[in-house]
Amino acid sequence: MEQNGSDAKKLKSSTELAEFDALFLELVDELTKNEIKNPEIADAFIWFKEVLHYNVPFGKKNRGVSVVTSYKHLVPEASEADLKIARVLGWCVELLQAFFLVADDIMDNSLTRRGQPCWYKKEKVGNTAINDSFFLECTIYSLLKKYIRDKPYYLSIMELFLETTLQTVTGQCLDLTTAASEGVDFSKFTMERYSAIVKWKTAFYSFYLPVAIAMYMAGISDGESHTKAKTILLQMGHFFQVQDDYLDCYGAPEVIGKVGTDIQDNKCGWLIVKALEIASDEQKEKLQANYARWETEAVEKVKAIYRDLKLEDVYKQYEESSHEEITNLINSIASAVPKEVFLDFASKIYKREK
Amino acid sequence: MEQNGSDAKKLKSSTELAEFDALFLELVDELTKNEIKNPEIADAFIWFKEVLHYNVPFGKKNRGVSVVTSYKHLVPEASEADLKIARVLGWCVELLQAFFLVADDIMDNSLTRRGQPCWYKKEKVGNTAINDSFFLECTIYSLLKKYIRDKPYYLSIMELFLETTLQTVTGQCLDLTTAASEGVDFSKFTMERYSAIVKWKTAFYSFYLPVAIAMYMAGISDGESHTKAKTILLQMGHFFQVQDDYLDCYGAPEVIGKVGTDIQDNKCGWLIVKALEIASDEQKEKLQANYARWETEAVEKVKAIYRDLKLEDVYKQYEESSHEEITNLINSIASAVPKEVFLDFASKIYKREK
Repeated sequence: MEQNGSDAKKLKSSTELAEFDALFLELVDELTKNEIKNPEIADAFIWFKEVLHYNVPFGKKNRGVSVVTSYKHLVPEASEADLKIARVLGWCVELLQAFFLVADDIMDNSLTRRGQPCWYKKEKVGNTAINDSFFLECTIYSLLKKYIRDKPYYLSIMELFLETTLQTVTGQCLDLTTAASEGVDFSKFTMERYSAIVKWKTAFYSFYLPVAIAMYMAGISDGESHTKAKTILLQMGHFFQVQDDYLDCYGAPEVIGKVGTDIQDNKCGWLIVKALEIASDEQKEKLQANYARWETEAVEKVKAIYRDLKLEDVYKQYEESSHEEITNLINSIASAVPKEVFLDFASKIYKREK
Repeated sequence: MEQNGSDAKKLKSSTELAEFDALFLELVDELTKNEIKNPEIADAFIWFKEVLHYNVPFGKKNRGVSVVTSYKHLVPEASEADLKIARVLGWCVELLQAFFLVADDIMDNSLTRRGQPCWYKKEKVGNTAINDSFFLECTIYSLLKKYIRDKPYYLSIMELFLETTLQTVTGQCLDLTTAASEGVDFSKFTMERYSAIVKWKTAFYSFYLPVAIAMYMAGISDGESHTKAKTILLQMGHFFQVQDDYLDCYGAPEVIGKVGTDIQDNKCGWLIVKALEIASDEQKEKLQANYARWETEAVEKVKAIYRDLKLEDVYKQYEESSHEEITNLINSIASAVPKEVFLDFASKIYKREK
């Protein structure tokens, strides 16, 4: 049977996801097996094993898998051994994210994550989850040491993870100090601040990190290539988050898998920031009075103002121009990295509905 | 004026403490200066600067300073430039501890630390302290990259910090899963568990880490030398913690700077573990009924049983035999590391009163 290009791509990426998933159990076993045999620390690693199983494998795994797909673009004839390393490093990205999410959920007082209760919400866990988040971070470096210690890119990738952690921690700090502790304070909801939070809290680790890992693995380590890739990928990361904020309000709940509550949660999202840019004083007052409230009428009033401001159209225009800008960027930046790496990312992002 | 050996040693170490302290402001400045000039992330680093000032410099700094004193023993003719590096690495040890303490205080619901409110207890901080603890950890690797990136021991010391973090996180997990969530449960208060917690939660980072850093700096990187040093230093770390637990109950509050509350806090300390080893069934019942209570009479009843069991004498005997054992160990293990490194540590620990 014939497949068109898009189906073939989907099949390829779902096969890779299956390969990627299959590795996880093996890694958990390796990270805990010897320790569980040591009576001194067995109890800790029986606990940690559960931490890994509960918190790491249930995401979309886009970030982890994109290490592998990027590496395949860079080294089309990669050996099975190197592909396995790429998968291990993909899981390291997923571990980094799990580390952040376990901790962020405590800081944000969240209730659920990936369709199950947040780890710290489990009765036997509570604030022990803080130490568990540290463990998740530690395992990244255990895996690097185990799998790539003798590779020429060991140090670069280790430094990359450490730097990315600091960038994300910086973004989280910006986010926490921007969210007003009580009531609505729009004074900090500027487009500059929004863009800074997205870049530091999300884009470095979600977009630049996976590709940068694949680049180091492929022997591309010069600063210029990395700067170019970073420029493109941070821009994509920015668009991705804008889109996420848009879908929280306008996405179909049965497609995005949740009912968005950014308005109720007092989030500094793209829609409210854009609305505040173009709203009249009267509209701003209404937003101020109704944002961050759980009453249905209040949420509807916010949405009505969004409607009056034609925010959906503003978003569609932004999506068009952003897509054009990024395509131009990809085509204009000549680089050691083939365009397919970035185009592959872009094709997954633009016009997505979830 | 003549000074005897002990006074000279005190003077020397207080001079080193002054040198060590003087470096801190410079490091904080370096860790935040450029970032505060970047409007995107300035607010985060103004916050982080306060995190550093509040949480890092007010401890006893024994761990940090011992990197420098150990290095001086290993390289008596060290250059001023290398001594500065040793001090920077000493501050990295203090940063590692600050990272753990900020987080531990949240997990333990502590109120004060080093004579001031715990960071998370400050009104504007709360659970943001979790992210701040991550920042403290990140700064270790920022400093390593800045100061020793071109040194042959860069990778070894980076891996050492990462491994020590995992060891300490493992110890914290053992401790958290041993402390009963409610009521008194002596079933886990065994000497084996006590020793494991001390080793993993405290001894690696407090005793082995500072000396191991100095060894790597001095070019001593073979596994055998490190294994030998580790054996001695973990044993010292164990004794140090036993002594800490003893002083919590029997030290003079005006000397140790606090009124001990290990009995009230349901701590798995050396005294209660040893008491449970030698107590009669009747005594165990009384301990069970009165441990972990804040009423003065309950505390007094526990102390009365300790008295009946002659725990002070048991401790004194343990101190003697432990001192002898460690001295023998130091003398019997021929090593690339001069004995003075260990004897210096031992002299600071044995017979201390605070």
